[in-house]
Amino acid sequence: MPDSHPEPSATDDPLAIICGGGSLPFAVADAVLRHGRRAVLFPLRGFGDPAAVERYPHHWIALGQFGRMCRLASAERCRDVVFIGNLTRPSLHEIRLDWQTLRLLPRIVRLYRGGDDRLLSGIGRIFEEHGFRLLGAHEVAPEILVAEGAMGKRAPSERDQADIATGLAVLAAMGPFDIGQAAVVAAGHVLAVEAAEGTDAMLSRVADLRRLGRIRYPVGVGVLVKAPKVGQDRRFDLPSIGPQTVAGVIRAGLAGLAVVAGGTIMAEPEVVATAADRGKIFVVGVPDPQRQ
Amino acid sequence: MPDSHPEPSATDDPLAIICGGGSLPFAVADAVLRHGRRAVLFPLRGFGDPAAVERYPHHWIALGQFGRMCRLASAERCRDVVFIGNLTRPSLHEIRLDWQTLRLLPRIVRLYRGGDDRLLSGIGRIFEEHGFRLLGAHEVAPEILVAEGAMGKRAPSERDQADIATGLAVLAAMGPFDIGQAAVVAAGHVLAVEAAEGTDAMLSRVADLRRLGRIRYPVGVGVLVKAPKVGQDRRFDLPSIGPQTVAGVIRAGLAGLAVVAGGTIMAEPEVVATAADRGKIFVVGVPDPQRQ
Repeated sequence: MPDSHPEPSATDDPLAIICGGGSLPFAVADAVLRHGRRAVLFPLRGFGDPAAVERYPHHWIALGQFGRMCRLASAERCRDVVFIGNLTRPSLHEIRLDWQTLRLLPRIVRLYRGGDDRLLSGIGRIFEEHGFRLLGAHEVAPEILVAEGAMGKRAPSERDQADIATGLAVLAAMGPFDIGQAAVVAAGHVLAVEAAEGTDAMLSRVADLRRLGRIRYPVGVGVLVKAPKVGQDRRFDLPSIGPQTVAGVIRAGLAGLAVVAGGTIMAEPEVVATAADRGKIFVVGVPDPQRQ
Repeated sequence: MPDSHPEPSATDDPLAIICGGGSLPFAVADAVLRHGRRAVLFPLRGFGDPAAVERYPHHWIALGQFGRMCRLASAERCRDVVFIGNLTRPSLHEIRLDWQTLRLLPRIVRLYRGGDDRLLSGIGRIFEEHGFRLLGAHEVAPEILVAEGAMGKRAPSERDQADIATGLAVLAAMGPFDIGQAAVVAAGHVLAVEAAEGTDAMLSRVADLRRLGRIRYPVGVGVLVKAPKVGQDRRFDLPSIGPQTVAGVIRAGLAGLAVVAGGTIMAEPEVVATAADRGKIFVVGVPDPQRQ
């Protein structure tokens, strides 16, 4: 049964979308436009896709240009801001600081000392103090949330379902530590847990271990499980999947991938379903264990 | 305060030492000889070090030659068996099966379906059913257990101590899942959790992430923490460290490495201390959180 998505609230002011990399920002922009709301994109230099950005009203900004972003968004009469897309966690020296950001710097440096959750929710508070309302992408474009059920033709076997349950339990146990949102489980054996390396690197590791004979399960045994962190602020950093994740799962020789329905976002569901069918893996949204 | 080690029981029958790779088997054999007991080595082909093996009475065996091992150990009047040294988890097709092992095969295949703990304790039961007593290396050679305190000249800072506590908490949370015994924590941020890849591969990953700028902490921030799994049968698979671990920690740019005192084994303490001092890292044994 698919989740009933909340209806995004209709307002007259355009939505500011700060865009990292990947196709998610544009899926969100398109959904917002379909809902009858205007959108202004603020692509981040080095992350936003220039060709795609051209299709929307936009202003390029650099990391660290918080003042510039505030001025431009105010001039566009934006009040709501969404921050979406891949953003390799930048080193401090890569950030170009404007005056506004410079004043906030001591605070940001303190935030950097915590985990990702603390950094992101801290940045959320800073936006709010400057008169913006920071929303989750799923609040303005609920259709990007993965629904329950299989996306392509394949569904998890009984063994896969047991592996999914184990993976969810591992991720729940990791919750207090503000780390990875993904694990790989094969026939009850936890093969990999994600921390700072990210899901794609973790999948490459599983592919390597298999090639080296360190994983003895045949191709088609094992599941990638992704879930939002326990207690995480879902306005930021909801786990996302896309064609790249599907390709990684296929290369790692797994049976499929399971994500928490209503707690995972996806830009291109049809592309994902087609890629999954072609690679003979399943992609499934499972009920949220935190809400049961 | 160093742990008081249990005195190994003196017996007349020689100890059978099944030897995997690395220097640990020989450290154990030397300690047993110092305690006045004879030892017969059963080095595993492809794992045991041939040059070192020559110094002791020995019989080469292949993986899967359980029958041969039983016959030879009985002829040598061994009753106690210790299994020690690195053993990359072999794929089933690498194992050369003798008749005895062939009869046990269905049972071993079932054991392979669980995690490492289940495999190892199951193999322990098989030994016992054949009239042997399987002991932990630390029971016959207590001096190979790491004691509390710093091994070289450096000691963990206050921040390092907080990272050690976080690492131990992560490993405790992972306990129910029968996976890795190691994690890397830097300034409260969990950078890596070990599963099927092993400690050395996890340290290489941290070194890579640092080189790619994905880890923003300066060199000298972060700790490798190793601990026995919660509830693990300590006769098998106690975590071990050696010069290779120290080299990995230095390459990963960490401040040092902490292991659970009395729950971690080490072959060459002087070599480890010298390597740690040269690389400007600490190596410390910390109290066992499971026994507090």
